Amino acid sequence: MTDTLDSPAITSISRLTVPEIADLPQALQDQLASLERQLGYIPNWARAFALGGAHAARFNDYLLALLDPNSGLLPYVDREILATVTSAENGCSYCRLNHAGSLGEAIGDHKLGTRVAIDYREVRELSARHRTLAEFASKLALHPGEVTDADIDVLRELGLTDEAIYEAVHVVSAFAAANRFSIFLQVTPDDQFFN
Amino acid sequence: MTDTLDSPAITSISRLTVPEIADLPQALQDQLASLERQLGYIPNWARAFALGGAHAARFNDYLLALLDPNSGLLPYVDREILATVTSAENGCSYCRLNHAGSLGEAIGDHKLGTRVAIDYREVRELSARHRTLAEFASKLALHPGEVTDADIDVLRELGLTDEAIYEAVHVVSAFAAANRFSIFLQVTPDDQFFN
Amino acid sequence: MTDTLDSPAITSISRLTVPEIADLPQALQDQLASLERQLGYIPNWARAFALGGAHAARFNDYLLALLDPNSGLLPYVDREILATVTSAENGCSYCRLNHAGSLGEAIGDHKLGTRVAIDYREVRELSARHRTLAEFASKLALHPGEVTDADIDVLRELGLTDEAIYEAVHVVSAFAAANRFSIFLQVTPDDQFFN
Amino acid sequence: MTDTLDSPAITSISRLTVPEIADLPQALQDQLASLERQLGYIPNWARAFALGGAHAARFNDYLLALLDPNSGLLPYVDREILATVTSAENGCSYCRLNHAGSLGEAIGDHKLGTRVAIDYREVRELSARHRTLAEFASKLALHPGEVTDADIDVLRELGLTDEAIYEAVHVVSAFAAANRFSIFLQVTPDDQFFN
Amino acid sequence: MTDTLDSPAITSISRLTVPEIADLPQALQDQLASLERQLGYIPNWARAFALGGAHAARFNDYLLALLDPNSGLLPYVDREILATVTSAENGCSYCRLNHAGSLGEAIGDHKLGTRVAIDYREVRELSARHRTLAEFASKLALHPGEVTDADIDVLRELGLTDEAIYEAVHVVSAFAAANRFSIFLQVTPDDQFFN
Amino acid sequence: MTDTLDSPAITSISRLTVPEIADLPQALQDQLASLERQLGYIPNWARAFALGGAHAARFNDYLLALLDPNSGLLPYVDREILATVTSAENGCSYCRLNHAGSLGEAIGDHKLGTRVAIDYREVRELSARHRTLAEFASKLALHPGEVTDADIDVLRELGLTDEAIYEAVHVVSAFAAANRFSIFLQVTPDDQFFN
Repeated sequence: MTDTLDSPAITSISRLTVPEIADLPQALQDQLASLERQLGYIPNWARAFALGGAHAARFNDYLLALLDPNSGLLPYVDREILATVTSAENGCSYCRLNHAGSLGEAIGDHKLGTRVAIDYREVRELSARHRTLAEFASKLALHPGEVTDADIDVLRELGLTDEAIYEAVHVVSAFAAANRFSIFLQVTPDDQFFN
Repeated sequence: MTDTLDSPAITSISRLTVPEIADLPQALQDQLASLERQLGYIPNWARAFALGGAHAARFNDYLLALLDPNSGLLPYVDREILATVTSAENGCSYCRLNHAGSLGEAIGDHKLGTRVAIDYREVRELSARHRTLAEFASKLALHPGEVTDADIDVLRELGLTDEAIYEAVHVVSAFAAANRFSIFLQVTPDDQFFN
Repeated sequence: MTDTLDSPAITSISRLTVPEIADLPQALQDQLASLERQLGYIPNWARAFALGGAHAARFNDYLLALLDPNSGLLPYVDREILATVTSAENGCSYCRLNHAGSLGEAIGDHKLGTRVAIDYREVRELSARHRTLAEFASKLALHPGEVTDADIDVLRELGLTDEAIYEAVHVVSAFAAANRFSIFLQVTPDDQFFN
Repeated sequence: MTDTLDSPAITSISRLTVPEIADLPQALQDQLASLERQLGYIPNWARAFALGGAHAARFNDYLLALLDPNSGLLPYVDREILATVTSAENGCSYCRLNHAGSLGEAIGDHKLGTRVAIDYREVRELSARHRTLAEFASKLALHPGEVTDADIDVLRELGLTDEAIYEAVHVVSAFAAANRFSIFLQVTPDDQFFN
Repeated sequence: MTDTLDSPAITSISRLTVPEIADLPQALQDQLASLERQLGYIPNWARAFALGGAHAARFNDYLLALLDPNSGLLPYVDREILATVTSAENGCSYCRLNHAGSLGEAIGDHKLGTRVAIDYREVRELSARHRTLAEFASKLALHPGEVTDADIDVLRELGLTDEAIYEAVHVVSAFAAANRFSIFLQVTPDDQFFN
Repeated sequence: MTDTLDSPAITSISRLTVPEIADLPQALQDQLASLERQLGYIPNWARAFALGGAHAARFNDYLLALLDPNSGLLPYVDREILATVTSAENGCSYCRLNHAGSLGEAIGDHKLGTRVAIDYREVRELSARHRTLAEFASKLALHPGEVTDADIDVLRELGLTDEAIYEAVHVVSAFAAANRFSIFLQVTPDDQFFN
């Protein structure tokens, strides 16, 4: 009986093939280059998701616009709350670690970002607005058929228009997809997430 | 006590606002026009989803390419099986009725299309290949964290490459999103689904 | 990789033996003849259930009386709502397709019958009375231990006596049994359901 | 803070009205008299279920024949195992206490009867045959759609014909209904169950 | 096909090794002797749990103090309600049978003790206080993350201080552990439970 | 609509009263002092759990011995895997963050510790031994009644004696309790967890 982890040698960042960047469609290559400019590195999700080729490029177009801090009907922090909670409820390790960081940066509180990425329910410090969004994300992610008219009215009481409510639906639903990509591929979290 | 349904007067096709077509971004107007050319009518999902504006246009781009009969790594029927079963597992009435028809047309058996849209588990006539795809769609839709290496090997035994397997993941995940749009908006099924 | 369904040759309407009509107890033969007179054909459920012999005859006596349009404490449409929703919640494909039709006929709206058979939750057109009955059927079918005194009071507010409430319990419970017969035998839906 | 139970005064054996015996249809009166002859008392279930009138009489006909020790394709003990386990899985207190006794008597081991009525899974003394029947009852009661061809083959390996297998399905399904009656009415367990 | 149980010969009271009493740490030997003095026999749980050695002795210290009728912030009956309901919700046959008896004795009503050990939900005779404690035990045992501030307020309305509420949490949590020991070891219920 | 978190002012580390250290039983004061010597600070769990008084002191005795790196039948890393995975499966944020650190330290890989604390299922680098222990912890934590003889044999194949297997059961069960304390009290994670 040994005390060491005796890990299998995992050398790939994905459960499936990771394509060479040079072989990717131009749109994907451009997206990866843009991410590298923003972040200083190409995140593993972008490398692993690239297996989808043109489908991946189109999905990235859709997803990246939803999380653009400089546009959107909902404040960026709202969208980060929705993305982080959805990723937690769907059980996506990669996305939880990733958004723990981006949410923490958005709200200027790294500890709170991490705690929301683990479970928003135990974060007593969460504001009423963010708790409402978190509960909405959880329900739409896990039990979409249970969202009632009353749940929508609660969002309206936050001042959200129909267009803004539906943007929230888009964020949760885009992560319904993105979480499944990451979970399925078992993308290895980036070293940068742990600093 | 009366025997009549005494229905509330539902006049809208969506739980939220349905935007005027003339007010939509040009990309969305083009997509709606294209759908009308193909189908002879604009389906309610396209009208209702348009509330998302530019987000909706990008999502449509992504989704419609995944279901294009004339492209794709997987045969079109495979993708319809994945779309139909995913919609059933997610409990999306609109998408089940829609894909009951399109799957029925694709396999040339309207009854089988309808039965798969209700529950593939009770369709003894399903081929081994389509049952395998249906089981994969169900697991990825409802319990993504439970997809094992063995489940992936089963897909490889059908002759699927990594790229084709990941295309299947895209179809299931795109419907993880699209089903949530439809369920959330409670889009009224089109009259054309019932003919 | 082929695009065809390549179905196994399913020639039987049931997962278990289907007895010859001539070999059945007289009571069952009479029930089948009566169904044929009413419907113009013997439905597959009646053929497949006949494996139960005298048990089947006694169960049919019980079930058919509960659904008799010309008797009952509850209006026939109420009982069809209960039967259809129970069958949907229990996941019985045969019964959903069957009662989509009979409910549709009872309310004079084939589309609504089909939509309720898929999922009553997404049918905004449902009347308050029928929604209440549907919610009761769902709870008693899936979580009988969770039916509270308050749930019973809601039925009383519809004007139901204790006897009528208990008739509703009978309909849901009879289908708890009948759905299990159909699901277990995987009875093939009749061609007549698809017209 | 007091140490007494301070119970509400429960004087009825049922959550709904209990009809007078004299007011019941003759068939029901005969069934109650027959039960009294057999058991020495009229069990509360029979009194409470009588609210169903003619429906109750027909259901009793069906149920009592399934549990007749002197007929049936399956040995009586098998049917008691199926009835007891189904009642436990459905969470019916009345039926668990009732069948703890009748199963205990049938197998000549009161302790084992009680333990099966609580949870067959923890009864290591259960025979392989009865464990198989118990697992079948549990699956059909709680997850009917998950019963596979392989599950049926396991029953065939016990020597059961299709008719006997389907009798087992009848027992489980009859208790799917009877358990719902008892749970819904919250029938008070008879004093005789505790001796 | 035989009508007998044909049980495997189960001669041990535990799924794992049962250590000789003479080999146990002195603290455990003392606990067993004390239990024998109180009860007139050494219960199987104490014999089977002794496999844990010093860990078992420390756990027993903790558990036995929580159930001491002569100390505690909460009345002893309250603690028996919490222990019995927790054991039922966790599905521990041994503990349900054991506490059916000890709760029955504590409240002076053997029938009620047994019925609570099966399912408190169907016991209409339960007092409001004990129902509240039972609901709290069920939620903390099965869904600890769902306990809200409002649930705590309901306990405060019973007159419980923070210290008393937290003692209730200790009882439920100690049985979260003890139930897992019994279930894992499949401890045979003592003959004394059936008298 | 504001972009700030607008948090409620949370000043306490617990949902219930936090007792003054000077008021605690001596045994508890000694435990807190010992923890402070080891860690350099008194962790919030120890402060918050102290509400339990003598119960807390006895539980701490039990728990701390189970996690003592210098004793135990199982290697310390095994016990940390069991503690971490149990805390994750039970959804205890405090314990996940705490054991992410202690597991990371034990295996000399902070990233892996964090990833296991989020979800061991997605950590392909986990050794076969640790995956086996993780799966055992998950099943015993969430579905204790489903642990089969075969699951125990898998542990024996790792070389574990009955005593060692039962020590694993103790670790999982002690955290079944400890997690419920933390979740119930909503203990605020220590600042030290985030460095």
